Amino acid sequence: MKHLLPLIACLSIYLLLLIACTPTSSTSEATADNRPPNVVVIFMDDMGFGDLSSFGHPTIETPNLDRLAREGQKWTNFYTACSVCSPSRGALLTGRYPIRIGLGPTQPRNRVLFPDSEGGLPAKEITIAEMLKEKGYATGMVGKWHLGHLPQYLPTTQGFDSYYGIPYSNDMDAVEWSLKAFFAEPNINNWNVPLMRNEEIIERPTNQHTITKRYTEEAISFIQQNKENPFFLYFPHSMVHTPLFASEKFLNTSPRGFYGDVMREVDWSIGQVIKTLEELNLDKNTLVVFTSDNGPWLLMQEHGGSAGLLREGKGTTWEGGMRVPGIFYMPETVQPGTITDLGSTLDLLPTIAGLTGAKVPDDRPMDGFDLMPVLTKKAPSARDHFIYYRLQDIYAVRKGDYKAHFITETCYTLDNQRTELETPLLYNVNHDPSEKYDKATAEPEVLKELVELAAKYKNSVVAAECELDKGR
Amino acid sequence: MKHLLPLIACLSIYLLLLIACTPTSSTSEATADNRPPNVVVIFMDDMGFGDLSSFGHPTIETPNLDRLAREGQKWTNFYTACSVCSPSRGALLTGRYPIRIGLGPTQPRNRVLFPDSEGGLPAKEITIAEMLKEKGYATGMVGKWHLGHLPQYLPTTQGFDSYYGIPYSNDMDAVEWSLKAFFAEPNINNWNVPLMRNEEIIERPTNQHTITKRYTEEAISFIQQNKENPFFLYFPHSMVHTPLFASEKFLNTSPRGFYGDVMREVDWSIGQVIKTLEELNLDKNTLVVFTSDNGPWLLMQEHGGSAGLLREGKGTTWEGGMRVPGIFYMPETVQPGTITDLGSTLDLLPTIAGLTGAKVPDDRPMDGFDLMPVLTKKAPSARDHFIYYRLQDIYAVRKGDYKAHFITETCYTLDNQRTELETPLLYNVNHDPSEKYDKATAEPEVLKELVELAAKYKNSVVAAECELDKGR
Repeated sequence: MKHLLPLIACLSIYLLLLIACTPTSSTSEATADNRPPNVVVIFMDDMGFGDLSSFGHPTIETPNLDRLAREGQKWTNFYTACSVCSPSRGALLTGRYPIRIGLGPTQPRNRVLFPDSEGGLPAKEITIAEMLKEKGYATGMVGKWHLGHLPQYLPTTQGFDSYYGIPYSNDMDAVEWSLKAFFAEPNINNWNVPLMRNEEIIERPTNQHTITKRYTEEAISFIQQNKENPFFLYFPHSMVHTPLFASEKFLNTSPRGFYGDVMREVDWSIGQVIKTLEELNLDKNTLVVFTSDNGPWLLMQEHGGSAGLLREGKGTTWEGGMRVPGIFYMPETVQPGTITDLGSTLDLLPTIAGLTGAKVPDDRPMDGFDLMPVLTKKAPSARDHFIYYRLQDIYAVRKGDYKAHFITETCYTLDNQRTELETPLLYNVNHDPSEKYDKATAEPEVLKELVELAAKYKNSVVAAECELDKGR
Repeated sequence: MKHLLPLIACLSIYLLLLIACTPTSSTSEATADNRPPNVVVIFMDDMGFGDLSSFGHPTIETPNLDRLAREGQKWTNFYTACSVCSPSRGALLTGRYPIRIGLGPTQPRNRVLFPDSEGGLPAKEITIAEMLKEKGYATGMVGKWHLGHLPQYLPTTQGFDSYYGIPYSNDMDAVEWSLKAFFAEPNINNWNVPLMRNEEIIERPTNQHTITKRYTEEAISFIQQNKENPFFLYFPHSMVHTPLFASEKFLNTSPRGFYGDVMREVDWSIGQVIKTLEELNLDKNTLVVFTSDNGPWLLMQEHGGSAGLLREGKGTTWEGGMRVPGIFYMPETVQPGTITDLGSTLDLLPTIAGLTGAKVPDDRPMDGFDLMPVLTKKAPSARDHFIYYRLQDIYAVRKGDYKAHFITETCYTLDNQRTELETPLLYNVNHDPSEKYDKATAEPEVLKELVELAAKYKNSVVAAECELDKGR
């Protein structure tokens, strides 16, 4: 008998490992029919950290989102990968920093794609949609793309079965770009933005008054059509980017004014998506993620959002530019709570892979971490650092509680002021989220560690050919 | 029959009125034994608008308060009557602006009571405690008084049966007042503050490490002792005024650092109060109110709180100085929701009168409004304006969405800078809570109305003899 002990021990360990690796978690309980879970990613445009009631806004009403934040997880240290639009969106879909995917701008003028741009997200990049198609998912996109509007760059070339939305920002193709036009009575004719279905332009200018309502109808229709399949819906709203528009029904309903009206309609839209999932009995089998592409566009004054207690907004690497609300909701799987661990839109691809069993690309450097252990409250976040790129430079890095700035920029006005700091600034952004009290002198060891982290990225990350300069 | 119709109609109307006026609301349903409801008022010291998780702080954890805000009412346009301590506390207890009760300072140096002050809240003022004593309530106070520490001004002279706490701020009687002492390792010997029971000093210096814990035990004991009586508990915490102190158990537990540890202990304390009410089956028959005496003391850097998206802090009449979290909780009576209507600590006395049937003093001008119709969601707030006094001057007024500033002051440093404005500033503080975008030129009619409102107060409010100068 004694000589069999090692064999029995090995067998026991093997069986234990088998149990541990078998997906009998709450995820699979929720999917009794073994159908892989669905994924809905809702992405806001220019919505700030402080623009939800549950994130502290006094007069913006967001009851549906507040419910998701309460019954799901509310992430308060959640970062978008860039403080402006195109790079941020490319990073979310690929799980890679913009600089790696041709979306690290070489100059401020080409910070995003414009209607005369000729580049886009390169075909060789693998999006969440492409990853999930490999697993047999139905993939739909409704909303703003902004990763290339020429035929070879449209969503249907990047893994989406269907697409309904605008190809770039809702303030592009402007008849005349001026603050006055943004602040005037909303007029769709000031912005000659096309509305597309798949590869065709179906309306121009887009009737933006009803855009949120129509997106919502399309999103619901996609879910209903795919109720028997596993599906991925990528739903990046055009709002609350200026110019603001809302349906008649929502105008003059919010104490926050027009911006609040628009937020109310978006919140209604999200409520409709959740209601649809519930009616189809899919809610427990669908991960819903909500976040924003960058901080508030402060230049837009009362038409722009709020970063709450965070410093600055869109276009900067201060916290207000890149920290955004993060909400994860999937009843029974996502364990409710407020999460102060680090997370990023870069983590969505690996997290969705972790949830669905899809395969993360292994032939290229990836920048995300699987957050499923945090969503299920089994382990803390694997993300312990984050790099704040702007243009092709590292402006700042965060590790744990601390953030070091090497280059700063203010974006309150149209004239960004870039300052390369002789001595980096160091903030404990968990103690001091408003970035007021420099600790560089008090914490030299921490600063040294962050300087080294920045150097490591600077020395190892290879910039891809810039797509944003093409045609400009 | 036909000639009886007018009589029947009159009778019907009479009966309808009788039904409408009979107190058969949820309030009295909750008090099946006709015992008048209890009241607990919890008052924070120097806690800002942005310092609760439910009011948007990313790293301060306040699960108990968040629950009260969610299951009760979360007020986001709620004002304390003064941006510093003594005047704010006097106004809360009397329902009158500080200037009317001898607590409108004549000079910055005497902005609050100090250990060498010889004044206090005049005996002729009627506090909530005195009002409720008339109705047979047991009245207890636990915490910081700061309305006169000479025998003739102590809480037991103002309607409280019992008192346990410190007579003024926890940073007074300083061995040496310096920022260094605040930021150093907490040492109770730096602050020779007395702890009192009723009229006796029982400890000096107060062991502030355990102050929140001991207050909590006293508060629970008061509730338990009075479980058969209607009671009023006034519970103004000494925290989170600097110097910060927390019990061993809470040290190093919050991602926000020391300030977060202290907030966690206060939140625990409030959880204990609610738990006690629930265990005694008194929760549905007790109105719990939570708010703060003024905005965060920004000078205290990471040891001070946050006003969230509001401008400035303590000592100023910007929103960050005077807008504070307001939470009302009474299951079945207070109808859950986020309330953007105007409210103030000035309204607590008439609201408590409305709830309990106590009599509001009618021999003097009162500045509060009964908020019960809002708490029960039967009508909007009767408060449509608020006056921002500092010293004996009207610095600003708010009416509806708008606020006009006539004098401004910044309090970031010790050297306050007072500016008397030639042209008032006008902000729509519902659209623009951060007070960034002046509308004075765009909205002359609104400004005129606010100027008239200020003039009305200036011409009619009589300043009482100033108590704050006595002995100084």
